[in-house]
Amino acid sequence: MTTPIRFELIKTCRQTGARLGILHTPHGSFETPMFMPVGTLATVKTLSPEELKTMGAGVILSNTYHLWLRPGHDIVAEAGGLHAFMNWDRGILTDSGGFQVFSLSEFRRIEEEGVYFRNHLNGDKLFLSPEKAVEIQNALGADIIMAFDECPPYPATYEYMKQSIERTSRWAERCLKAHRRPNEQGLFGIVQGGEYEELRRQSARDLVSLDFPGYAVGGLSVGEPKEVMNRVLEFTTPLLPADKPRYLMGVGSPDSLIDGAIRGIDMFDCVLPTRIGRNGTVMTSEGRVVIKNAQYARDFSPLDPNCDCYTCRNYTRAYIRHLIKCDETFGIRLTSYHNVYFLIKLMEQVRQAIREDRLADFREEFFECYGFNKPNAKNF
Amino acid sequence: MTTPIRFELIKTCRQTGARLGILHTPHGSFETPMFMPVGTLATVKTLSPEELKTMGAGVILSNTYHLWLRPGHDIVAEAGGLHAFMNWDRGILTDSGGFQVFSLSEFRRIEEEGVYFRNHLNGDKLFLSPEKAVEIQNALGADIIMAFDECPPYPATYEYMKQSIERTSRWAERCLKAHRRPNEQGLFGIVQGGEYEELRRQSARDLVSLDFPGYAVGGLSVGEPKEVMNRVLEFTTPLLPADKPRYLMGVGSPDSLIDGAIRGIDMFDCVLPTRIGRNGTVMTSEGRVVIKNAQYARDFSPLDPNCDCYTCRNYTRAYIRHLIKCDETFGIRLTSYHNVYFLIKLMEQVRQAIREDRLADFREEFFECYGFNKPNAKNF
Repeated sequence: MTTPIRFELIKTCRQTGARLGILHTPHGSFETPMFMPVGTLATVKTLSPEELKTMGAGVILSNTYHLWLRPGHDIVAEAGGLHAFMNWDRGILTDSGGFQVFSLSEFRRIEEEGVYFRNHLNGDKLFLSPEKAVEIQNALGADIIMAFDECPPYPATYEYMKQSIERTSRWAERCLKAHRRPNEQGLFGIVQGGEYEELRRQSARDLVSLDFPGYAVGGLSVGEPKEVMNRVLEFTTPLLPADKPRYLMGVGSPDSLIDGAIRGIDMFDCVLPTRIGRNGTVMTSEGRVVIKNAQYARDFSPLDPNCDCYTCRNYTRAYIRHLIKCDETFGIRLTSYHNVYFLIKLMEQVRQAIREDRLADFREEFFECYGFNKPNAKNF
Repeated sequence: MTTPIRFELIKTCRQTGARLGILHTPHGSFETPMFMPVGTLATVKTLSPEELKTMGAGVILSNTYHLWLRPGHDIVAEAGGLHAFMNWDRGILTDSGGFQVFSLSEFRRIEEEGVYFRNHLNGDKLFLSPEKAVEIQNALGADIIMAFDECPPYPATYEYMKQSIERTSRWAERCLKAHRRPNEQGLFGIVQGGEYEELRRQSARDLVSLDFPGYAVGGLSVGEPKEVMNRVLEFTTPLLPADKPRYLMGVGSPDSLIDGAIRGIDMFDCVLPTRIGRNGTVMTSEGRVVIKNAQYARDFSPLDPNCDCYTCRNYTRAYIRHLIKCDETFGIRLTSYHNVYFLIKLMEQVRQAIREDRLADFREEFFECYGFNKPNAKNF
């Protein structure tokens, strides 16, 4: 089988083992490690496609579950697929819908065939299976699509997790069989197994034997401590083929992006930059800024003195604070723009550090400046 | 007194008497008749300054009352004025705050000195007078500022209106005296008088004798029938000096823009395009489109087949409907962009028709296509 997704490994950081690569997709090639902004409902919240391109975003993530419910994958397919529908001509990855079934639905019943659950919008009964998740993703037409998996909560018992990963492996095989556009869309497998090394090993072995064009590490960033995530990555990424891309799902805080890259991860996604932006919180090189705070009312400096983004070049903290306090949409455009830009540029810096074999040094400098080294440091 | 605002009359339409002109301000010169998008809180809702420039917006309006309350005119002044604060280097006009005092406040008491009222946000007692309104506007630093007037409701009795315009004339004189930046900001007088020709005549005579650099017609678009507005304009604009700009406050429906231009108006402003855009209603050459309607779910054509704006060049009705239905900010960006563009381009067409001495013909063609000629036609 030819795959439309190809990973080119350029070099490995001598200081950390982090990988510099290029991901080739039907909609362009992009350097890794990289951060994918999230466009759940076929829009990266508040931002235009042109703005995302200006920032250097090469791939975005959209959510199968949400697009299935609204507007419906049939409408997206009629529009000519997700790229045409939302006017985005670069890469798109869609998740499988599994994560939302487990995180958004209060009621659900997992069977071998698939999962029965209720729509979070109106309570309608729905059913999602490996075949259905792939059918929807084939209709949406993203460059990268994801196998339908169970994402168990943290913590979960060893026994539960073992049954879960075995079913997820069987589902992965069914996804491959159901995939109708293998020459246009690359289907990635998802390694699960929680914090259990033996189960991660078993899950990785099962999935690698199925020869996916790429692999995700799932079931992390679901509430476990950062140390657990890093430890799991340390024993999991070496189990994955070096010539294929590795995607850590749902991770987007600056520290975890760097720590993930150090542990061999190439791709990340997270709603963090747009979600906190909508609340008026921004990431800066000197740490978090909560722009609503009174101290910024007369602060005529940019959000981040070291940032050259559109927001920082043109607007002050005082102005952005005013907009956010007044619930003005342009305010959340400016904070969202800055935050997404911040993570995309952070990954540029990470790639540069890999090139220079100094990612551990870069990590130390960045953590110190951001405040991650402080006791009781916040997550982002 | 030198004035920073100068109106250059280019030609008059032989078919209608409409005026083609150029308005010179400290922040650029712009052709008239023109439409000013409204940026109440130092932002034209959802849109960036660059987007407004791309559309051809030369002047925007901001609201004194709102900026006085949030963030405070002192903060805007510290930022270097409204242009610097919001990153807009073209013209700005600020209203006097009077209209909001009368429309937003349930409690108010008018005295000769000024108006006592309660802040619509938190109920605090406030006082606005001619001197205070000018002081705030001097601090905000717009190119054009407005005299503090009373905007009586429609209908009002002749007796009430007569007392009101006489007080408004006295207030206008006080505004002129209070104005501290006459070489940088042009102060416009506002003609009131409701539907009473005699009172409009008296108000215009009072204000013209004070020699303002421009005149507004106030107290229209406050609930009266369109026929009343047009009749009032017909006898009011001839009372104003031909060599100065005439501004019809708060008017923005396509029919009224054309009808106002025909009656000698040069400037208009209205929240209409952004307000209806936020509800998913758009103006098109073929009439109103309420994009939430089910009929557009699979409509892959642009909002307006005859429009070349960013929205219409890149997005379909189906996509925009999806965004609006999902409360996605990018949806209201797209509808707001289109609607503001629509009115700015409509004024370009009006100016072209004046150039060609055919504004009455253009009016007929536009009304027919838009549906204004139908029985029970909607307002916009």
